Amino acid sequence: MNAIPATMNFASDNNAPVHPKIIEAIVRANRGHVLAYGEDVYTRRAVAKFREVFGPDVEVFFVFNGTGANVLGLASLVRPYNAIICAETAHIYTDECGAPERFTGCKLLPLPTSDGKIRVDQVRSHLHVSGVEHHAQPKVVSITQATEYGTVYTPDEIRELADFVHNRGMFLHMDGARLANAAASLGVSLRALTTDAGVDVLSFGGTKNGLMFGEAVVFFNPTLSREFRFLRKQGLQLAAKMRYVAVQFEALLTDDLWLENARHANRMARLLADRLQGVPGVTITQKVEANAVFARIPRRAVAGLQAKYFFYVWDENASADEVEVRWMTSFDTEEAHVLDFVEAIKREVDFPGR
Amino acid sequence: MNAIPATMNFASDNNAPVHPKIIEAIVRANRGHVLAYGEDVYTRRAVAKFREVFGPDVEVFFVFNGTGANVLGLASLVRPYNAIICAETAHIYTDECGAPERFTGCKLLPLPTSDGKIRVDQVRSHLHVSGVEHHAQPKVVSITQATEYGTVYTPDEIRELADFVHNRGMFLHMDGARLANAAASLGVSLRALTTDAGVDVLSFGGTKNGLMFGEAVVFFNPTLSREFRFLRKQGLQLAAKMRYVAVQFEALLTDDLWLENARHANRMARLLADRLQGVPGVTITQKVEANAVFARIPRRAVAGLQAKYFFYVWDENASADEVEVRWMTSFDTEEAHVLDFVEAIKREVDFPGR
Amino acid sequence: MNAIPATMNFASDNNAPVHPKIIEAIVRANRGHVLAYGEDVYTRRAVAKFREVFGPDVEVFFVFNGTGANVLGLASLVRPYNAIICAETAHIYTDECGAPERFTGCKLLPLPTSDGKIRVDQVRSHLHVSGVEHHAQPKVVSITQATEYGTVYTPDEIRELADFVHNRGMFLHMDGARLANAAASLGVSLRALTTDAGVDVLSFGGTKNGLMFGEAVVFFNPTLSREFRFLRKQGLQLAAKMRYVAVQFEALLTDDLWLENARHANRMARLLADRLQGVPGVTITQKVEANAVFARIPRRAVAGLQAKYFFYVWDENASADEVEVRWMTSFDTEEAHVLDFVEAIKREVDFPGR
Amino acid sequence: MNAIPATMNFASDNNAPVHPKIIEAIVRANRGHVLAYGEDVYTRRAVAKFREVFGPDVEVFFVFNGTGANVLGLASLVRPYNAIICAETAHIYTDECGAPERFTGCKLLPLPTSDGKIRVDQVRSHLHVSGVEHHAQPKVVSITQATEYGTVYTPDEIRELADFVHNRGMFLHMDGARLANAAASLGVSLRALTTDAGVDVLSFGGTKNGLMFGEAVVFFNPTLSREFRFLRKQGLQLAAKMRYVAVQFEALLTDDLWLENARHANRMARLLADRLQGVPGVTITQKVEANAVFARIPRRAVAGLQAKYFFYVWDENASADEVEVRWMTSFDTEEAHVLDFVEAIKREVDFPGR
Repeated sequence: MNAIPATMNFASDNNAPVHPKIIEAIVRANRGHVLAYGEDVYTRRAVAKFREVFGPDVEVFFVFNGTGANVLGLASLVRPYNAIICAETAHIYTDECGAPERFTGCKLLPLPTSDGKIRVDQVRSHLHVSGVEHHAQPKVVSITQATEYGTVYTPDEIRELADFVHNRGMFLHMDGARLANAAASLGVSLRALTTDAGVDVLSFGGTKNGLMFGEAVVFFNPTLSREFRFLRKQGLQLAAKMRYVAVQFEALLTDDLWLENARHANRMARLLADRLQGVPGVTITQKVEANAVFARIPRRAVAGLQAKYFFYVWDENASADEVEVRWMTSFDTEEAHVLDFVEAIKREVDFPGR
Repeated sequence: MNAIPATMNFASDNNAPVHPKIIEAIVRANRGHVLAYGEDVYTRRAVAKFREVFGPDVEVFFVFNGTGANVLGLASLVRPYNAIICAETAHIYTDECGAPERFTGCKLLPLPTSDGKIRVDQVRSHLHVSGVEHHAQPKVVSITQATEYGTVYTPDEIRELADFVHNRGMFLHMDGARLANAAASLGVSLRALTTDAGVDVLSFGGTKNGLMFGEAVVFFNPTLSREFRFLRKQGLQLAAKMRYVAVQFEALLTDDLWLENARHANRMARLLADRLQGVPGVTITQKVEANAVFARIPRRAVAGLQAKYFFYVWDENASADEVEVRWMTSFDTEEAHVLDFVEAIKREVDFPGR
Repeated sequence: MNAIPATMNFASDNNAPVHPKIIEAIVRANRGHVLAYGEDVYTRRAVAKFREVFGPDVEVFFVFNGTGANVLGLASLVRPYNAIICAETAHIYTDECGAPERFTGCKLLPLPTSDGKIRVDQVRSHLHVSGVEHHAQPKVVSITQATEYGTVYTPDEIRELADFVHNRGMFLHMDGARLANAAASLGVSLRALTTDAGVDVLSFGGTKNGLMFGEAVVFFNPTLSREFRFLRKQGLQLAAKMRYVAVQFEALLTDDLWLENARHANRMARLLADRLQGVPGVTITQKVEANAVFARIPRRAVAGLQAKYFFYVWDENASADEVEVRWMTSFDTEEAHVLDFVEAIKREVDFPGR
Repeated sequence: MNAIPATMNFASDNNAPVHPKIIEAIVRANRGHVLAYGEDVYTRRAVAKFREVFGPDVEVFFVFNGTGANVLGLASLVRPYNAIICAETAHIYTDECGAPERFTGCKLLPLPTSDGKIRVDQVRSHLHVSGVEHHAQPKVVSITQATEYGTVYTPDEIRELADFVHNRGMFLHMDGARLANAAASLGVSLRALTTDAGVDVLSFGGTKNGLMFGEAVVFFNPTLSREFRFLRKQGLQLAAKMRYVAVQFEALLTDDLWLENARHANRMARLLADRLQGVPGVTITQKVEANAVFARIPRRAVAGLQAKYFFYVWDENASADEVEVRWMTSFDTEEAHVLDFVEAIKREVDFPGR
């Protein structure tokens, strides 16, 4: 007997539904005619909310999804002969089907990483090509916060990268699909990780933190945003009925809903990792700082576990008889789910398939 | 005293809210985890609904917006050295900020038109460049149904274009942002205007007909759709929480909600045009076949009218003292709005600004 | 009996061989190793020669061909959401297989023209979209000098366009594939038509005026050229053995070889036109200001004439029984060729095929 | 006293002049008018010569330079959502300023390599993403022959890669900027390394082997070449006066001039490497199989040597006090140059700067 709903999984925070408060905000906005394309009061209110949170000088633009936010934010910073430096694990490098290259024309230069983070010295090693026309010219460093491995950059680490690139006429871009999780993890404000740390352009994620759709591109240097309206329209990312994106973000930033959702997801990941400490056959492979748990488990245990709570194998060949898996939690993961999953893991690792 | 809500306007069907049945469908789907990116039961059900309506062989993909649907549908049909032939008034030519050119690499060849429609002879005049490498090679004809002028192609007119282009190894693309309005106007099925008329790829609009966001790209020749999943992802148009697009379309195609909405909007346009017949100073300039009314009115009347019911001026310089305006109706336009607007028009044309 | 070499034609100035002085310059440079990619003394000397001719502040870059020069020069001036305004007859619009669109991402906006030239009022009519994100934003006006119809802009006409666009934050680009012919026609310097007339970027043609290959992109505002080295390399237009392009241009600009060649070609076109005055059945259709003659002739005369001196039909359907043809002359067209051709025309128009 | 011409260097085979027989071929072709853009007898003759050498079914197209040949050859094989797999040292990855990404829209996936060559197992490791829309889809493997390290693939090694990729619906592209050197090194025909080894598309280099400009794109599967004329024109690589490219290639392939030039260059590299065997402070770091010698030398020796015979430092930080350098030889490198350079090296390594 299993009282846990069959529809819970640990595959992705994108698999979660929409937070009830977000649905409520949408329903509240569903009255009468307003101008399309963002010329409406809802959008103005949402932008004002961003300025409360990130500082009065930010410029904010709503787009449909994370790839759109990343690609258009980057496009604001580059010319096609530029190169964009990122971790080899970055979403923009591995999971956007070449959209950054196609849309910006730029080369992406991947840096090796064991924890999803990149360091100043790695960036430096790519800069000797500056000024030589045979080589794509590095112009942007893009980091992901929290990283694709569920680790986080401290404000100081971000500031160090920001200072380094700014001193060389370059920009710092942040893919913040899970910025909320990073801030919750560090116990700092969104502003401390962005405005105050020297980020130039941010993709601020909504979809993975309880929204239905929509991401925000935040410019901390307003002069960089001058072209964005045109890039967004030409980049297929201008929503006609913008109010329905805007009110989601307004709700997310109201009464710290973003923080509540992220903190909860992080806590569930922490709980999962804690309960797996010392379980034979299970090895946590990354620091659990946000809402992801990476672990090595026996290959033979995978199918049985996936049937119960679906998740993705990250590395099929972690060792001869082990795979590395990624377990994601979300705002609606319940403690009961986690505990039930832990029991399932223990059982499958021990006697798979029972 | 004016009982009409201040938020009604005649500017665009994009300014309308979301139809209540669409909101309900969204709320119903908001339970539990499902796989992201369209690997879910809601998306399968919506696709099945499209096959009921358009025929069993269609392939359907959901995207975020109309520009995305047009650009990616076209990208499925071309290589960058191709040309796309369309009316000079086509949304893809005038209102997408060059997105088709940027994303496909193709040249758009605009054909002059007085009613928004194009004819076979105009297409033929561009084909003498075929095979000559100095010229972009025509590969697609794109038509808009209903047109940007609110006129419609009959099934025979579409078939004639389809046969012509197919005989020359080319394709017929349809921007169907308002296909529902065209079908309602002609009293024919969606299928009669597409599947049965020889269309190869269709952008089927939702946003202008009561949806929150989302358009569908429909392939009538499945072999043309093989690459679409990759084009969509790289083209920034893959929704993570796909279920929330899918259920909107499922609801739209259920119990002919699409038809009810479109028919109502058309009726309101018809009513507006009928009531303006014979009003001195107002000249209807296009056939009113869908949900748009184009008219010439005195320039001095514009500001007063816009203050009451906003709309856009289409041509600032229709004559020395007249402008051409576009009035759009939508699923939620009420007869009272129209009649009130007609009175306002009569008043402003007569004594502007009172 | 025909003493005229069979290999002469009136099809294109691209069909001519290389001027002997250009060959000599190449042979002279064919000694020893020099650094590739333009870091050599020959390139420096050629650039210095351009500064003598066009003024000390110009920046000059050599590329392979005219399409390359146009596309990369334009790419220096735009972002992908921009529009480029040109005549509907412009080489960039009709004869570059969509290269400008593909490479810049921009829309080209064609202006109707009867003589290949465009006027300020036509440009103005496209500027009402400025600032509206739905429309590609006009940023460049591109003119061709001499035009594709063999007509020329006066310095004043160029200045008027330059002032107009500069006042609106836009740029003036000149496709000067036949700039030499225009300068020869007007009896003015190259500088008078470019530097002094407000042109921002010029494609200065070599291939049509006696060179083997190579065009020069000339920037009159050096700040616009900062990125060009990178655009050129990424744009496939950086020659490894640059010296062989550079010495051709040095020779062309030495002792007014450019002028001598162009003046001769113009004179031959003038002679052809003059001798055809009053010939029944032949109607000159454009002013003969450079090295092209456009004429209407009976359709039945075409094949016979082409067999003798090949040329291209410009418009197959000029009238029921006439075509419009384009006859080009070049630096090596001899008076005897022209006179012989005139006789052939008279004969064919009268009794075709004899 | 130094009788060696000051203009010899070991920096690049691009720094050499044009072979006298190539100049002669150009001069011979410089008579009369011929149709532009390759519709001429010289081009037909050159293509016929390619068919003699590579087999009767090849399709051949001439372009301006190596980057153009690579990018357009690759563009024939891909759609923008594809990935191109290559060595991290590949010219297309490191030295083309991002042109492949910009022009094809594709992602390049670099494989680590110590000798410039890639192996089947490395390719296999990238194919698990096939069919998953989040990832750019591998479609082409591109190898360089001879490699950027002066090493060569055997026919069997090429065949193994070709079979592997063909079995997976992929293509094998070869950057043959120095294919002549590889064939000379292995003592096999050009055909053995391409047609007979399963290559799909080849960039056949001319400029590095004695030509003035020009590369050839060779298709071994003619169906892949159908679009190339359009890609070339739109890709800025269609020469107007094509005859001057064609006759260079015809001469290069006549009486084995390609082989003579390449064999000589290889012999000079071999001589240089042999004479440096056992010289203290000099370590040859790669097999010397073509016309390149890679070596580690003391950093303090570099400046003095460069002043005498210029060359490029490949790796500034090979060790604490050593750099890795690349010395290239060419068709015109003389034995005396090599011996003189060896003496200089010995001297500088011993007593730098004297």
